[in-house]
Amino acid sequence: MSKEITSRAQDYAQWYNDLVIKGGLADYSAVRGCMVIKPYGFALWENMQAGLDRMFKDTGHVNAYFPLFIPKSFLSKEAAHVEGFAKECAVVTHYRLKNDPNGGGVVVDPEAKLEEELIIRPTSETIIWNTYKDWIQSYRDLPLLINQWCNVVRWEMRTRLFLRTAEFLWQEGHTAHSTKEEAVAEAEKMLDVYATFVEEFMAVPVIRGIKTISERFAGAEDTYCIEALMQDGKALQAGTSHFLGQNFAKAFDVKFLNKENQLEHVWATSWGVSTRLVGALVMAHSDDQGLILPPKIAPLQVVIVPVYKGDEKKAEINAKAKEIMNQLKNLGVRVKFDDNDNNRPGWKFAEYEMKGVPVRLALGARDMEKNVIEVARRDTKEKKVVSLDGIAQYVEGLLLDIQHGLFNKAKAYRDAHITQASNWDEFEKLLDEKGGFISAHWDGTAETEATIKEKTKATVRCIPLNNPKEDGKCILTGKPSTQRVLFARAY
Amino acid sequence: MSKEITSRAQDYAQWYNDLVIKGGLADYSAVRGCMVIKPYGFALWENMQAGLDRMFKDTGHVNAYFPLFIPKSFLSKEAAHVEGFAKECAVVTHYRLKNDPNGGGVVVDPEAKLEEELIIRPTSETIIWNTYKDWIQSYRDLPLLINQWCNVVRWEMRTRLFLRTAEFLWQEGHTAHSTKEEAVAEAEKMLDVYATFVEEFMAVPVIRGIKTISERFAGAEDTYCIEALMQDGKALQAGTSHFLGQNFAKAFDVKFLNKENQLEHVWATSWGVSTRLVGALVMAHSDDQGLILPPKIAPLQVVIVPVYKGDEKKAEINAKAKEIMNQLKNLGVRVKFDDNDNNRPGWKFAEYEMKGVPVRLALGARDMEKNVIEVARRDTKEKKVVSLDGIAQYVEGLLLDIQHGLFNKAKAYRDAHITQASNWDEFEKLLDEKGGFISAHWDGTAETEATIKEKTKATVRCIPLNNPKEDGKCILTGKPSTQRVLFARAY
Repeated sequence: MSKEITSRAQDYAQWYNDLVIKGGLADYSAVRGCMVIKPYGFALWENMQAGLDRMFKDTGHVNAYFPLFIPKSFLSKEAAHVEGFAKECAVVTHYRLKNDPNGGGVVVDPEAKLEEELIIRPTSETIIWNTYKDWIQSYRDLPLLINQWCNVVRWEMRTRLFLRTAEFLWQEGHTAHSTKEEAVAEAEKMLDVYATFVEEFMAVPVIRGIKTISERFAGAEDTYCIEALMQDGKALQAGTSHFLGQNFAKAFDVKFLNKENQLEHVWATSWGVSTRLVGALVMAHSDDQGLILPPKIAPLQVVIVPVYKGDEKKAEINAKAKEIMNQLKNLGVRVKFDDNDNNRPGWKFAEYEMKGVPVRLALGARDMEKNVIEVARRDTKEKKVVSLDGIAQYVEGLLLDIQHGLFNKAKAYRDAHITQASNWDEFEKLLDEKGGFISAHWDGTAETEATIKEKTKATVRCIPLNNPKEDGKCILTGKPSTQRVLFARAY
Repeated sequence: MSKEITSRAQDYAQWYNDLVIKGGLADYSAVRGCMVIKPYGFALWENMQAGLDRMFKDTGHVNAYFPLFIPKSFLSKEAAHVEGFAKECAVVTHYRLKNDPNGGGVVVDPEAKLEEELIIRPTSETIIWNTYKDWIQSYRDLPLLINQWCNVVRWEMRTRLFLRTAEFLWQEGHTAHSTKEEAVAEAEKMLDVYATFVEEFMAVPVIRGIKTISERFAGAEDTYCIEALMQDGKALQAGTSHFLGQNFAKAFDVKFLNKENQLEHVWATSWGVSTRLVGALVMAHSDDQGLILPPKIAPLQVVIVPVYKGDEKKAEINAKAKEIMNQLKNLGVRVKFDDNDNNRPGWKFAEYEMKGVPVRLALGARDMEKNVIEVARRDTKEKKVVSLDGIAQYVEGLLLDIQHGLFNKAKAYRDAHITQASNWDEFEKLLDEKGGFISAHWDGTAETEATIKEKTKATVRCIPLNNPKEDGKCILTGKPSTQRVLFARAY
């Protein structure tokens, strides 16, 4: 099976698609731009959800659920928001079908036209702030720290499995605060939660930064982001956290009585990560043989494959394998003993390699005699013969090693791909020949940003948090600049 | 706050609505027929999800995700299915908005009309079986045991919070099998899972049965169901599990090569429960003072309220309360210490009574002196002064008592409300004066069923599993019958 994967060198985009489809993560669907998330891919997402949800709750947030539909007029209430989101979206205009009088199956019933069209939520600020209006009267009702796990739809023209689909799954946090300082602190705290999750669970290093005005969320005062680097040198925005100021409170007239008994508009944040993270995970670690998944979120952490020679010692091998499986389960390890007789060991090795299972144990008759087992780690492909005594503890330690090893490898690659450019030629050359983040001076204007994007497809990914000040000249215009920013081509 | 709840005797429907809204479970939204599930209500749903999801996985199922949209033509492929589901649904006809040239906000862009309309899934058999076609070739690919947690939309004309809303959350299992026997066994197994969950977690007794042809799921060969009884004597269908035969496999041309190398159509089941369960839970146990929630799924199981007299012993009370809280947490109990100074103890008592927290502990200065604490259980309103020594274990046992007590109370009520009727007058009188399930003979025809429904609003809720055979005469037509069935008015 692994032979069928296109190599990264040959066609990176096709390599990615091969991994997603042949690794059993997702599939195309009959609906344009929508994907089916297959059980193995969904298990990955469930592990991400579990990790994030725990972190959200540990920071005082609760979950709730708001309607899928947004009345069309709501989108128009926040001027910047409507520009950003009202364009490519799914519009519900009718609420009934009827039998075709001409016998052609079912047709839309023209008499069941909605008075006001409903938009499938592309993001839920508007419907949520319309609701918060009823929930917030006094400073005692604040803060509201609410998150929602749901599906959203953005009618993208060019879609790619996980990275950009018309429908996707995500979480969106929407918080309400009595002061600007508290809201800004919340937006920063959630960026921190995202960065910690992506680095510690997904083993993907990220740069924390702030977006330029042109790259801001439509309706935000500031957009914080985490940016990751993929193996082809392109950046990927892995999560965003927005300080929304009082924009949505003003649009939906949400005020509260402060401690001084005065009416004020409420301060807001919103923040989200999506199934896009699955795409980022695939691209960050995998190789030409298949997926490489970090142990902390791998659906399956260890697989035990028995290697029989006919029926020789089959019962003993099975008994020992089950014993190891139970020891690992007791340590909380997600483990499978694959004794399916329909497939040969070689086929299984390739299959679990493709699926990115971090550790593979192979146990045969001769191993039993010597009281050893073969341990193969997916990330480095290193194989080792290890004593069966204390094997569960050994594997537990190995899973941690793999988790750290993946992060360190990705970080070394990322760090080696942040390069300073001091003039335009260098900038273009770096983009084309090396890729990665390019640290360069920029005059701070949207015009220059747009021109650079037009010329090179590179955008300002972010202004890193705590960015050092440094006098310099914009690489495009030569105008004065006070700091370097990070440019890259991006997903 | 509890004073504002309408009593059951006065207006049962209003009592239910008061509980849902004032108990903080849900709220109406700006979108017709859609509700907002508030954090407290969502926490209840999360606990239900966690319990069910564990049971699904323990029985070999995995989760996946299929598109929100169903191409209109898919609905027409299964003849019965389209009759049942294609009528009241949300139809997406366009994929873009544009600025109104006349300055009226945004309008639907007539140029962005979809070639084929998309329906928001009312249930996902069609899109899933269209996908299974690509996943199933041989008997080796079977069974497929897949579940999905998602939102669905049915454009209901009359909606009620949780019980019937245009959009609701649910899970839908969709399994594929190589034999009829295996599929039937699966449908029965999942009915069993539902019954176990509803009885053991929700403390609501259910009758397991099978639907009559007229009440079957559109496209099923058999619909199994669990039926619960509410306090007003009306029945509520709490979950259904369908044996779909080969109907969807034929509609979507899904065949597999069996072990004899012959092509056969695949056998199917589907099964689902929804946020409707939250409504059932509210109506099954609660009283005129507020919600009563069973400990196993209550978001909060225990609340500790300190009762200060000025600052006397405040520090000691707080320290002791926190100690008890930590002891309970160590036992896995969901507990809150409410030391909010803004509200008085009496207000808190009423609030947690309204919210149905199973156990309330109140600790004051005099209790501290006597080394005791006041324990109040929500279900019976019994209050007891208990020694502080071993209080955590005492509370742990009490939670179990409450769980069983609620089930037993609901079961006694339910059992007392299954009444045999031997003629039409008795049948009508029982329906109007006593309510509950009425066990009566029926001639087995859809016509009689429809006439009974028209005359009394009562329907055949189910033919109980393992129903004893008994010769008799139909209460309406007097025609011969071989068994009694259960009638009731229902939600």
